[in-house]
Amino acid sequence: MTTFAIGVDLGGTNLRIAAVDESGKILDRITTSTAVGGSRDGVIDDMCQAVRAVQSRLASSKLLGIGIGVPGIIDLHTGMLRQSPNLPGWENYPVQQEIERRLGTKVFLENDANAAALGEQWLGAAAGFESSCMITMGTGVGGGLVFDGKIFHGMLGMAGEIGHVNVEPEGAPCGCGSRGCLEQYASATAIKRMATEAANSGLAPRLAQAIKDDPNFDSAKVYDLAMSGDAPSQEVFRRVGTALGIALAGLINIFNLPIYVIGGGAAASWDAFTPTMFEVVRKYSYIYRATSAPESPRQNVGTDREQSALTAKVTRITRASLGGDAGLIGAARLPISAMLGS
Amino acid sequence: MTTFAIGVDLGGTNLRIAAVDESGKILDRITTSTAVGGSRDGVIDDMCQAVRAVQSRLASSKLLGIGIGVPGIIDLHTGMLRQSPNLPGWENYPVQQEIERRLGTKVFLENDANAAALGEQWLGAAAGFESSCMITMGTGVGGGLVFDGKIFHGMLGMAGEIGHVNVEPEGAPCGCGSRGCLEQYASATAIKRMATEAANSGLAPRLAQAIKDDPNFDSAKVYDLAMSGDAPSQEVFRRVGTALGIALAGLINIFNLPIYVIGGGAAASWDAFTPTMFEVVRKYSYIYRATSAPESPRQNVGTDREQSALTAKVTRITRASLGGDAGLIGAARLPISAMLGS
Repeated sequence: MTTFAIGVDLGGTNLRIAAVDESGKILDRITTSTAVGGSRDGVIDDMCQAVRAVQSRLASSKLLGIGIGVPGIIDLHTGMLRQSPNLPGWENYPVQQEIERRLGTKVFLENDANAAALGEQWLGAAAGFESSCMITMGTGVGGGLVFDGKIFHGMLGMAGEIGHVNVEPEGAPCGCGSRGCLEQYASATAIKRMATEAANSGLAPRLAQAIKDDPNFDSAKVYDLAMSGDAPSQEVFRRVGTALGIALAGLINIFNLPIYVIGGGAAASWDAFTPTMFEVVRKYSYIYRATSAPESPRQNVGTDREQSALTAKVTRITRASLGGDAGLIGAARLPISAMLGS
Repeated sequence: MTTFAIGVDLGGTNLRIAAVDESGKILDRITTSTAVGGSRDGVIDDMCQAVRAVQSRLASSKLLGIGIGVPGIIDLHTGMLRQSPNLPGWENYPVQQEIERRLGTKVFLENDANAAALGEQWLGAAAGFESSCMITMGTGVGGGLVFDGKIFHGMLGMAGEIGHVNVEPEGAPCGCGSRGCLEQYASATAIKRMATEAANSGLAPRLAQAIKDDPNFDSAKVYDLAMSGDAPSQEVFRRVGTALGIALAGLINIFNLPIYVIGGGAAASWDAFTPTMFEVVRKYSYIYRATSAPESPRQNVGTDREQSALTAKVTRITRASLGGDAGLIGAARLPISAMLGS
């Protein structure tokens, strides 16, 4: 009897579900119209219904369990969310036990950035490496650490909050109560904020025009302007690259890992921020200078995955390769890893 | 037959050696007059001679191996030092193989800050915890990570370079080629430098007088002045505390460990820098704010070691308890851990 696991992604806008076999093949997937930020009980109802639908379509296979990637800080000792601004009503609610009770199968709750890191480690940009660190540039900035194939959780499951590492002591205030967090410079939200600040300064006419013309103005538009030569837009991405470079240099000095993966929606601006990022990592990490792989702003996954690159003891910074599926695939990996020990 | 291991500390001024049994009891120790920075072959000769002397005195016990704590960056794959400014001539020399050949026993080479972290984890401030992180404030600033009782090495053994984490993007230049490294604010060298800068500014008359009067002026003197109410000296320690606070906040956000230990000679100024340090950690880490243990600037080890504190899932920042022996004890722990798996 073949086996499979179900991954659930609550990290995006809509609830998404996939059935994945132990080799990583996606057997089935459902993208629901359920808004993740809607009523908690509604989201859980729809999730259970979608899981049952997938189960019935794969009735000849055995379900190992369900992994759920959740945007928020999870307390692993209680299986509850400690902090989840994007999931109203989920805090201090026994979500894991509730879903286990309803579906009669083992449920694994995981922070969505950790799940994405595990996905990239299993089947993406970090495949073949024992350990990796991933930074996810989304609405916020998330982080995940995978050591010897397992997510590093720390004492309570809160490890990997790379988005809240300080990169500018008296920098922009952050929702976490601190200032100058990486998230304030390297998230899609931050890119939009910095572009808006530039427009308001009166010194960025093209950005100002774009904001006026487009009610859906976002970080992708800033990227387009930067690539078309708009200096204020390029300056925004220099700040993104500087912040990422300082954070990565610290991570490299602390971890000495073989690979650091950058993903999430705002990583689509790779070409705009990486020239500065690589320059700044070099400046702030002598371990990177001593051990870095040949790099280019367009460095991509294919070349890195060659066996020679895998065995060489060099430090790599590379772009994620699974796109929006990283969290879904990583979530499905949780029950596979726990139940099969593979 | 009882067993023991030998720890060697090359991290200080003189070569020191201790024989330690598997319970951590020091059976014998030799502090030689050999200057660690002297001729490489002379240091190795004296080390081998001292090890043989200890062995002959403990002839009825079995030697498990020798652990050596070394100031420098070790490449674990070659057993050689990659960078060791304080050990002239040791770079790219097969020190591990050479000592194994001469003494006929297994040799484990380790960075001295990693060895100190392991020592504190085994018998010191972090005893009883599975994982810990240690910052050593010495001539430079070292770091060590112990996860599940083992030193975390990263890809090449270079992990834990916490002294070179950036705490001020455009800060003081560092010997590593970067700027604003923690080491430039929290080492004994940095305390002396910042005090000298204050004296040279003309606004710190008591510091200027102390420097003039005392050819051996050092960080301990700055501490004495700070504790006696000298404002410019207190300002030096506010900078120490700010830098440590920013670095610790980052480490807490990344690792979510139960305990962070601060040791090394300059940690003797604990009372002078910790009020600022705790304030800054609170400011920059919401994980610390959410999980911190009750703290006080005089927080000491005794209270933290109670069983209730050990099992409580709180974040602790505490002072090291083994003093100058941490590295020696940690070095001896290496063969015990490797040979007995305990």
